[in-house]
Amino acid sequence: MTTPSGTPGNQSSEVAPAEVALAMDWGGTWARAAVIDRDGRVLWQDRMANPPGATQDALVAGAGDLLLRAKDQAGGRPIAGVGVALAGSIDAATSMLLSSPNLPALDGVVLPALWAPRLGAPVWVGNDANLAALGEYYFGAGRAAPPHRMAARTLAYVTFSTGVGGGIVDRGAMFTGAAGAAGEIGHMTIDARPDAPACGCGNSGCLESLTSGTAIGRAAQARLGDATPGSPLQQAYESEATVTGEAVFAAAARGDVVALEVVEAAVGCMIVGLSNVLNIFNPDVVVIGGGVTQGLVSLGLVEHIEAGMRRRAMSSGHRAFRLAPASLGENEGMVGAASLVWAQIGQS
Amino acid sequence: MTTPSGTPGNQSSEVAPAEVALAMDWGGTWARAAVIDRDGRVLWQDRMANPPGATQDALVAGAGDLLLRAKDQAGGRPIAGVGVALAGSIDAATSMLLSSPNLPALDGVVLPALWAPRLGAPVWVGNDANLAALGEYYFGAGRAAPPHRMAARTLAYVTFSTGVGGGIVDRGAMFTGAAGAAGEIGHMTIDARPDAPACGCGNSGCLESLTSGTAIGRAAQARLGDATPGSPLQQAYESEATVTGEAVFAAAARGDVVALEVVEAAVGCMIVGLSNVLNIFNPDVVVIGGGVTQGLVSLGLVEHIEAGMRRRAMSSGHRAFRLAPASLGENEGMVGAASLVWAQIGQS
Repeated sequence: MTTPSGTPGNQSSEVAPAEVALAMDWGGTWARAAVIDRDGRVLWQDRMANPPGATQDALVAGAGDLLLRAKDQAGGRPIAGVGVALAGSIDAATSMLLSSPNLPALDGVVLPALWAPRLGAPVWVGNDANLAALGEYYFGAGRAAPPHRMAARTLAYVTFSTGVGGGIVDRGAMFTGAAGAAGEIGHMTIDARPDAPACGCGNSGCLESLTSGTAIGRAAQARLGDATPGSPLQQAYESEATVTGEAVFAAAARGDVVALEVVEAAVGCMIVGLSNVLNIFNPDVVVIGGGVTQGLVSLGLVEHIEAGMRRRAMSSGHRAFRLAPASLGENEGMVGAASLVWAQIGQS
Repeated sequence: MTTPSGTPGNQSSEVAPAEVALAMDWGGTWARAAVIDRDGRVLWQDRMANPPGATQDALVAGAGDLLLRAKDQAGGRPIAGVGVALAGSIDAATSMLLSSPNLPALDGVVLPALWAPRLGAPVWVGNDANLAALGEYYFGAGRAAPPHRMAARTLAYVTFSTGVGGGIVDRGAMFTGAAGAAGEIGHMTIDARPDAPACGCGNSGCLESLTSGTAIGRAAQARLGDATPGSPLQQAYESEATVTGEAVFAAAARGDVVALEVVEAAVGCMIVGLSNVLNIFNPDVVVIGGGVTQGLVSLGLVEHIEAGMRRRAMSSGHRAFRLAPASLGENEGMVGAASLVWAQIGQS
């Protein structure tokens, strides 16, 4: 990793200003853009809401405008490239967005072809969870830290959020699979019984159907009858007419017995799923992210999960890992997209 | 892939003889060695039984002698390197055999350091299932075949045998994980119930505990009470006092109802496990090997498994795969070990 040699405004004729990457994290609600340096620092950022009902052309034009604004904000520093994180499967050969469940109008779009001429820089796209993994590898929980933390060799990232997604980075490169669709750790079945909870993917017993925020909220709501009248869980339900994953963690933090049992069951499934990840990928760093992970951190459950994983791991080689919460927060998609630029130009 | 430029005995001063690899597949019972060319052809092979109760030094000396014999048999062709397939976890950084369940005396051995000076060529070691995957990638079911079969980009190999093992090859390179222990697909839990069948690894509900030959035999034996007196399964039990996986497939081939039900249940679990592999690794080629696979082939069940996987796969990108039985037979470990040599010297 080189150190940026220029600071903003310091562009003498002798010291060339350091390159930056433009980054975008384009989700179902927001398109967020940033200027990011070689050290993963966000120098500028802004976001815009996707206009509801817009066509693909209008969406692409609007988000392209936002990236042009980012380019203006780069202050004359050379743009090494543009990285874009998208929620969906990306075809590895063509960079086409194959399926975009949260923003269906983008299905089939090939952003590099549309944006590279407009932005005057190469454009690379990747799946948002895969890129979050890449960002954590280079600039987050995977990075070496003095005095004793080694840099990751193989990093597995799992985000427990509304859904459950994931990504694998091995020796600095994303594992994309043949068609760019690898890392769907949320759709690993860990309960093959026919009566396991149904999953949005059409199967049942997937890790997502047992451990996502949605699943945790749903499991608690199904158990409202067991909750004491006036308990935190009952109160949450009465004020919202539904139970969210967040509400379950809030109730658990207040000692609600049913909420604690629901969290415990989800944690048991996470341990099984994350142990499968250990045995299959043999990572030395496992990073967990997403809102559910924030709930687990607040309840002090991360070490419990790590101990459970170590118990289920198959051999000493599989037990040689550390578990860490994601450290890049809401910027992880953009930092990951910038990491893709640095990885692609081979200077990271 | 280059074509060998010399044939045995044709060593004129103008055409240099083609390089060969020495290969060894060292399992719990046999050490097998071969001379293998650039096209994966076995030019010579032999094997020796591991002397029972031998020390690590004696085992290493004996297998080294076998490789020296292979070198003699190479007929003066240059030795590009030596590849060794071992049943156990290999530390990626040190090449140390970390755990060798089938030949515990070898625990901790570092073969490259011991053999490279003796053989006068670089030595590389790998896990046998990972190397079988590499062999299938370059020289077996992963290879392009006219008119329409494309070469694999990402190949997942699963062997259903006494146990269940696996390996992943992506764009020509084995996915080893941080410590060389990746690919333990048999120890992916797909049935997280506490009463799922116990697995040798200490967990329960692993793919291995539901689909290995051992598991299939055990499941049939537990159901002997349901078998009709005189049925093929009953006969097998009466002659052997146990039921093996092989006997279950033989009985199923003769129409034994209980045997067919046991095979059907195992196939259902295979479909779940292999679909997980699709969603996680997004391979374009899935290769299944081992004795259980031979039983499935003889019952005509491979297409049924492929259809089930396609039904469970998450998206079109995950459904873009072909399923193929392993094609290298008992040589797959040695051909894989030779592939490691070609991959390491960067000319494959």
